[in-house]
Formats: sequence, C-alpha cells, structure tokens
Amino acid sequence: MREVAVIGIGGTKFGKHSDRSIRDIGLEACLKAIRDAGVKPKEIEWAYAGNLAQWEWGQGLFIGQVVLRELGITKIPITRVENGCATASTAFREAWHKVASGACDVALAFGVEQMTVVDSTKMLSIFGGRQYPEREGDMGYTGPGLFALMASRHMAEFGTTREQIAMVAVKNRKFGSLNPDAQLQSTVTLEEVLNARMISDPHTLYQCCPRGDGAAAVVLASPEVAGRYSANPIWVAASVQVSGDYPDDRSFVGLDCDVRAAEKAYEMAGMGPDDVDLAEVHDCFAMAEIAHYEDLGFCKKGEGGRFVEQGLSDMGGQTPVNPSGGLLSKGHVIGATGISQIIEVVKQLRGDAGPRQVEGARTGLQHNGGGFIHTDAACSIIHIFKR
Amino acid sequence: MREVAVIGIGGTKFGKHSDRSIRDIGLEACLKAIRDAGVKPKEIEWAYAGNLAQWEWGQGLFIGQVVLRELGITKIPITRVENGCATASTAFREAWHKVASGACDVALAFGVEQMTVVDSTKMLSIFGGRQYPEREGDMGYTGPGLFALMASRHMAEFGTTREQIAMVAVKNRKFGSLNPDAQLQSTVTLEEVLNARMISDPHTLYQCCPRGDGAAAVVLASPEVAGRYSANPIWVAASVQVSGDYPDDRSFVGLDCDVRAAEKAYEMAGMGPDDVDLAEVHDCFAMAEIAHYEDLGFCKKGEGGRFVEQGLSDMGGQTPVNPSGGLLSKGHVIGATGISQIIEVVKQLRGDAGPRQVEGARTGLQHNGGGFIHTDAACSIIHIFKR
Repeated sequence: MREVAVIGIGGTKFGKHSDRSIRDIGLEACLKAIRDAGVKPKEIEWAYAGNLAQWEWGQGLFIGQVVLRELGITKIPITRVENGCATASTAFREAWHKVASGACDVALAFGVEQMTVVDSTKMLSIFGGRQYPEREGDMGYTGPGLFALMASRHMAEFGTTREQIAMVAVKNRKFGSLNPDAQLQSTVTLEEVLNARMISDPHTLYQCCPRGDGAAAVVLASPEVAGRYSANPIWVAASVQVSGDYPDDRSFVGLDCDVRAAEKAYEMAGMGPDDVDLAEVHDCFAMAEIAHYEDLGFCKKGEGGRFVEQGLSDMGGQTPVNPSGGLLSKGHVIGATGISQIIEVVKQLRGDAGPRQVEGARTGLQHNGGGFIHTDAACSIIHIFKR
Repeated sequence: MREVAVIGIGGTKFGKHSDRSIRDIGLEACLKAIRDAGVKPKEIEWAYAGNLAQWEWGQGLFIGQVVLRELGITKIPITRVENGCATASTAFREAWHKVASGACDVALAFGVEQMTVVDSTKMLSIFGGRQYPEREGDMGYTGPGLFALMASRHMAEFGTTREQIAMVAVKNRKFGSLNPDAQLQSTVTLEEVLNARMISDPHTLYQCCPRGDGAAAVVLASPEVAGRYSANPIWVAASVQVSGDYPDDRSFVGLDCDVRAAEKAYEMAGMGPDDVDLAEVHDCFAMAEIAHYEDLGFCKKGEGGRFVEQGLSDMGGQTPVNPSGGLLSKGHVIGATGISQIIEVVKQLRGDAGPRQVEGARTGLQHNGGGFIHTDAACSIIHIFKR
C-alpha cells in the first residue's frame, strides 16, 4: 500500500439551498476541489460519490456521473456509496484505497445531500421506520432517543452532569461562529443551551445538530504525482472502517464500534491519541462528542464530562475537538458530512484555518459514525492525517 | 494485482416476495453462497451490498450490516454501493478489487431488491423523474422510450426487422423455461411476441423485462486460500467499469460505453470476443441484446438482427447469449441483477447448468449496464470469467 495525499479540497456553505438542484450543489464543491488541487478534470482517474437518499429527497439518480459530467469528467469508473451518516467518509475511503493500492494515481471523492426539500415529518418517519421498524423505529429508538439514553446512562454511571453535556454545544457553536461555511454562526451561552426547548431529555434543541443542504469534495493523489500538483499535500496516515457487533447486553455509555476503529487507526498511523493535535468527531448530539472523547482515547471512560468542563477539548486545550463547529454548528448534511470534516482537518494541517486555527497542528483525526442496531453503531470510520 | 476466484454462489428465485422482509430475501442468498463456498461466516473479511433504492421502496437502511448480522458477519467493513441497473456488478467489482489488491483474502458481495411492494405508477414516476427530469424524464426519455428509439434507428440504418428483435424474446424465454429461478418459465412464440400489447414501438410486452424481488450473492477468494474452500473455483479474468461520455451528436444504434468496456475487458483477459463461450448480457429490452452482440464484438455493427435470426446466440450457436433466460425471463431485480448474471456464468463454467448447459464452456462474459444520459449509458460493467 502506498501513501496517499489530499491535494485539493472544496465545499459549499452548509445550510438551505432548496432553490438549487442537487447537481449544482455537488458541482460547486467538486469544481472548488479540482481548482484547489490544480488538476485538470481529465486527470481524475476514479471517483466516488457519497449520498444517503438522493431518490427519497426527490432527485439525484446517478449523482456521481451527472455532477462530474458537468466538469468533463467522463468515462472513468464512478460509483455512489452509502453508509448512513458515514456515507461521505465511505466515499473518501474507497477513493483512498484505489490510490493506496496502486489502481490509480488521482481520485476524487465527493458527498452531497439536499435535505431541506423534505418536510420534517417525512424525515422523521424515514429515519425511524426504515431499518428495524418493528424493533427500533416504532419504539422511539431513533437518533434523538438513542443518544438521550446514552446520556442518561452516562450520567447515572459516571456522574456526568447536564451542564457538562451542554458545554459541548457552547464550545462548538463558539467555533462555528468563526467558520463562514457553518450553517449556525451565532454563539450560545450555557444558560441558553440548558433552557432551550427540550427535544429528548437531557438534550435540548441546541444539543441536536440541524440538517441542511451542501456538498464537500476532495482530490487524492499518489506520492508519485502529488508533488506535481500541490505545494502542501496532507497525508493520510490511517484509514479504518469497521461495522458493529451488536450485543444486546452492553452497558450503553459509548460505542464499541468506535473503540475498535480507533485502536486500528492508531496502530495503522503508528501513533496514539496523545499525538492527535485536533479532531473532528461526529457530534450529532452533544452526548456523542463526550462518548467520542473516551472511545477515541482522549480521556478515560467516564471522564468525558470533565474533559469538556476543564477546557481540554477547547482551543489551547489538550485536544481541540471540532474546531469547524462540528455538526452542531455546520448541520449534518448526511452525504457530505464526513468529507466536510476531512476538509476542516486538511485546512488545519495546512495552517489555513484562520481565526479557528489550532496553532502548530501537525496531525488531525476525523471520526464519522453511521446508523445503529441496538447498542452499537452500524459503521464507524476513522481517518488520521498528518502534514 | 492477484487472481481472484469465485468460490461460492447463491440466489433466491426471482419473482414476487412481497410477504418477506428485504432482510430475509438478502439473507437467503448470502446463506446459500456461504454454504456453497464452505467458508465460515467469520472468515469473511470485507463485504459489499448492492441495492438501488431500499428507502424508496420502504425499508432497508444499512441493508449490508442488517443482513450479514443475521449470519454473524459483524465488525468487518460493509458498504452499500449503487450504480443504477449495474448496482450488483458494482458490489461484485468492489469486492473483487479488495481481494485482487491484497487488502483481504475472502470477500462477499450481494445484491437485493424488493420492487413489487411499490405500485407501477409510482415506479414509473421514479424512473422518469429523478435524473434529468427537465431534459429527459418529462420528455418520455425513460428506459422503454430510449430502447425503442435505439430499435427504430437500428431498423432504419441497418434494415433490422421487428421479427429479428422479437426473436431475442423467443430465445430468452425458451432458456428461461429451463431455469427454475426465473420469474417467467413459459415459452412464447414469435407470433405471440409480435402480437402482444405494444409498450413502446417496436417493443411489445414480452420484449420488456418484468421487475421483481430477489437477491444474489457470491463469495470471492484469493489464490492463496481458494483451494482451501472450493474444489471448483472459477476465476475472474477481467473486471472493467466505465462511465459514459455523453455526446449529443452520436448515432444512437448502440452504446459507446459498452464498446469501451468490452475493449478494456478483452485486453485485461488476454482474449477476444471469439474466445467467449457464453455471455450473460443486459437484455432489459429485446433491442438491447442486439446492440450488445455488436458492441461486445460477437458480430459487426448492424449485423445483430441477423445474428439472432441465424441462431448464433442460441444453444449450439457461435456464442450462446443469456442461457439463464436473461432479464426478459428472470426479471430485472435491479440491485441483484448483475450478481445473478455472474451466478449463471459460474454455474455454466462449473458445468452445473443442467438442461441449459453450454457444452464444454470454459470462458463466460457478464455485461451489466446502468442509466442513461442522452445517448450513452451512465455506466457499463463487464466481467470475464474462466475455469
């Protein structure tokens, strides 16, 4: 397996783009990534498109071919992949593997979703009812319900407080206010978070990520050609994807899937959690980020609440987490989220993150999870990058 | 890149399975393939699931993880892929690449779709309206319309007759009557085909494939371990995937996509069309098979009508085509079709095809196409197998 570099990144602002076609949204991100890389469209040899539910939202069949055709990227293998909320990371990882295995020298991965065109009642019925409706969705076992259960269990077992969980939202919205591509760019206070409308106890509105529309794209290259295009390649030190193992008897204070993925990723990168200068993790709900601190090894199990309270995940702390603002600020644009996280890590390692720059960052971790079956995620994907 | 063997195959009967869950349908195929291969579920290292529109039809989120969990296949990377009508072939090809590149020794690919749970009006609106509705679907530029245009042009340019086109259906339904897993197992006469209800001139009902429910699965292995499991491995001699290039000015008598894929596949396999002992091709409409004879090199451009009339694609002919009965008999179970074709090729090369066996078959070609943008397919995938 060869080293692989990210040589180009590009994304749209996340938010409401209901007046555009999904093709146009995807195109904006791909065009930016190609221009950033300095590659010619005809030099792209392989491509993956991430999209959760293009048809369900009303358009988008063959989204990969249809978007890339507008750039003159034709004839090459183009495939759509889907892995729930980890869809874009799956697209990235497949493109990475094609370059790493020597199948091609230059590959593109993009993710796109347009979710605001669907009304929220339909959205809920989709997320609740399409996996194991008889055992999960119909019993309230959906995203908000699941992470509320995890938070309750974490509070009972480790003494984690409502305030600590809410601090994740305060921190991430502060970072989001520094990110012009985030959907929510206003800060919130701890009191505002705690007093907001209750969604699923203990999570209030500001502790649940919004949805949105948007796209994110990257161009990947082999060491043999990366130098030809980019003065500042960022290298993939690890790429790991695992699925859940779904026992029925696990204490639900984290995700085994993430623990296994992190162990493999650190082994592949030849580093440990202490070596990670910043991380973009899947904060779909505030509690998720606390579990991720623990499952990714930034602190011990049970100490995630204190980790955020002590500022260890804040700027200047041990491991700044979600400097982009995270899903809580950007919104979870499902097909695009994973690559959006990767774009932030690459910006940070390039030193191009402006007012939210983590000083001297040399390594960054990206974590993206997808789906649930009982007490384990269906899928966990982790990438580690280094400059 | 290493050689890769197909060591296990398994599929459901194609037809109406609306009383089962999509998980159960997928499970039947995967269980059969694993038993056929003689592998233990825990020996599967990587898996791909093909499914076109699981959500749109009403259930099926994380279809790969959900089906494989029932077999105890957990923790490994599992990804859903989609490439329109070529979805299952895409799943096969990704699994093939993981074994060929050395990323793993044993991989599984399956495809599943449950289409009869959607009423036909909704189905038509989906296929017509989700790609380029303003330029294609709204103008009648859907599957039936497209292949009718191709047939009309082929008739005008080369003198191909309605009778010749109808002979494809007669031949494939004859083969289908010998396949217990086919949806339609009755034969039809040339008069019955020509006099059936007109769908899109010149294609009558029997020249259009039905849809259906079903699943198909395969287990793939490296040369290092294939002998451990299977006394009769069938080898992948070529795997090629290309996308269209979509010019607006092409004479629409075939698909450039398929011509390019075939050239690459023959080069990769080190053989030519004359070396192909049998082929399973994408006969979604009767005219498609005639174009494929030409585009895959079994005969010259324009001679496809005479090719079927002279029996050259029939049993005992130059290149028997669609001995399984093809999509015209089996039905196009979109997420499963490509792997279903591969299963037939493997059965033929094993000598296990019973009354429809192509005597002495040593090499077989599988061709699966997906989608349209103007006058080119969005995707064409070809695999060549040898025993």
